[in-house]
Amino acid sequence: MDAYNLHCIKPGSKVKLRDIDPSKTLGLQGPEDQERAAADALRDQNIGVMQQLQYRLWAEAKRSLLIVLQGMDCSGKDGTTRRVLGPLNPQGVRVSSFKKPTDEELSHDFLWRVHKVVPARGMIGVFNRSHYEDVLVVRVLNLVPKGEWSLRYDHINDFEKLLTESGTRILKFMLHISKDEQKERLQARLDDPEKGWKFALGDLDTRKRWDEYMDAYEAMLERCSTPEAPWFVIPADKKWYRNWAISSIVRRELELMDPKTPAMDAELKGLKIE
Amino acid sequence: MDAYNLHCIKPGSKVKLRDIDPSKTLGLQGPEDQERAAADALRDQNIGVMQQLQYRLWAEAKRSLLIVLQGMDCSGKDGTTRRVLGPLNPQGVRVSSFKKPTDEELSHDFLWRVHKVVPARGMIGVFNRSHYEDVLVVRVLNLVPKGEWSLRYDHINDFEKLLTESGTRILKFMLHISKDEQKERLQARLDDPEKGWKFALGDLDTRKRWDEYMDAYEAMLERCSTPEAPWFVIPADKKWYRNWAISSIVRRELELMDPKTPAMDAELKGLKIE
Repeated sequence: MDAYNLHCIKPGSKVKLRDIDPSKTLGLQGPEDQERAAADALRDQNIGVMQQLQYRLWAEAKRSLLIVLQGMDCSGKDGTTRRVLGPLNPQGVRVSSFKKPTDEELSHDFLWRVHKVVPARGMIGVFNRSHYEDVLVVRVLNLVPKGEWSLRYDHINDFEKLLTESGTRILKFMLHISKDEQKERLQARLDDPEKGWKFALGDLDTRKRWDEYMDAYEAMLERCSTPEAPWFVIPADKKWYRNWAISSIVRRELELMDPKTPAMDAELKGLKIE
Repeated sequence: MDAYNLHCIKPGSKVKLRDIDPSKTLGLQGPEDQERAAADALRDQNIGVMQQLQYRLWAEAKRSLLIVLQGMDCSGKDGTTRRVLGPLNPQGVRVSSFKKPTDEELSHDFLWRVHKVVPARGMIGVFNRSHYEDVLVVRVLNLVPKGEWSLRYDHINDFEKLLTESGTRILKFMLHISKDEQKERLQARLDDPEKGWKFALGDLDTRKRWDEYMDAYEAMLERCSTPEAPWFVIPADKKWYRNWAISSIVRRELELMDPKTPAMDAELKGLKIE
């Protein structure tokens, strides 16, 4: 089970989201709760390795990792942040949530507010939504003319190239849920007094435009998955599968980066504190 | 065992750090590992309540909490962040570490860089070191003239008043370790290949000025513990005691704040998703 190769969008390939099963499982024999237990155990192993490597990334302080989370409402961006990235040392993680741009943000280019919060050396940055909203909601709702948003794919690729060539590794995850699963999760949110506040009528408008959003996601995946900053489409109807897959890919990336704890100053060796 | 009243510095009181035992325990009968187990269980309870209340603080999005951690090298600022605040949802926590100021920061007043990173509504901010360095290291090493640093206590009180009257609750913890305990921890850091890099020769200079630092801490505690933004001196030789005490005080504060999850829009009640 190689989550990276299973879910990475090969640069230049065509993407048909309807052909990707959102309720994919590991494919083990036996009942689902058995499979889930296996996936959770692997996730915990992945997180253990991630914690060790995060310490070294921080100690090394030369490179950084940026994790981008995109997906429809209820696709699990918050849950992924909590379950997969929550166990990391909070000192080395910075979560940025991108909401409706402010007036000041709108008075700059669309990457201005993003550039300000990219992870510093040693840090892991998490984007809950991102600059990709500028080719998703902005495209679907025509918030800027087509002549403007259609240029953004290249702007984004150039921007991410600057980051990757400056020491930031980028992993981008589209959390892929089915329309039926979204229905259940939205309904559960509505019916739970602790969660109902999260619900806005606008969420229903977005749901009505599901197919237009899928088109926008496909264009984004086709145009912006690069070798240095690949997109992954993560089947996300089953949260345990999603957590296994994302933790596997993050772990793999940190292992490839192989950060090194710096050596101690030679003059300190053998020193006895008084 | 009321950590708040045990360790809060009453505004206007005199502080003698040498009279506060850094190796304090809960004072239960029995061997230390039994006491430690009891403290860890209470800490976990505290963290469970903190997690629930953090969700509501975030949902309410009207107020924020700022936690300031100060202490000598090896006093446990990183450990507290990881053990007590690490289990919170990372989306609602922002840790800011204050290092040597940059040229741009030095070209502004000392609170400029601090103000930029105070927690937004709904957030919990953690300062690993803080604006108090400007009356600690700056005072001990005479980095600015006395005429300048001596004004800063009032500047800090006024700044914190602005924050507390704008919806931010502030809890300030001085992690109080003994000079002997620091010796052991510094030595352990030196002797561990994964931790030796953290050690700088400057740490030894700071250790040599221990008494001057204690004087500076006492002045800070006496002048800047206010009813709205109290200082706590936390005995920190025993990490389990420290974690119990700080989690108890943070839990108490969140309970007093009593954030409320907003009600759902009335028009959404009974809605069925299609």
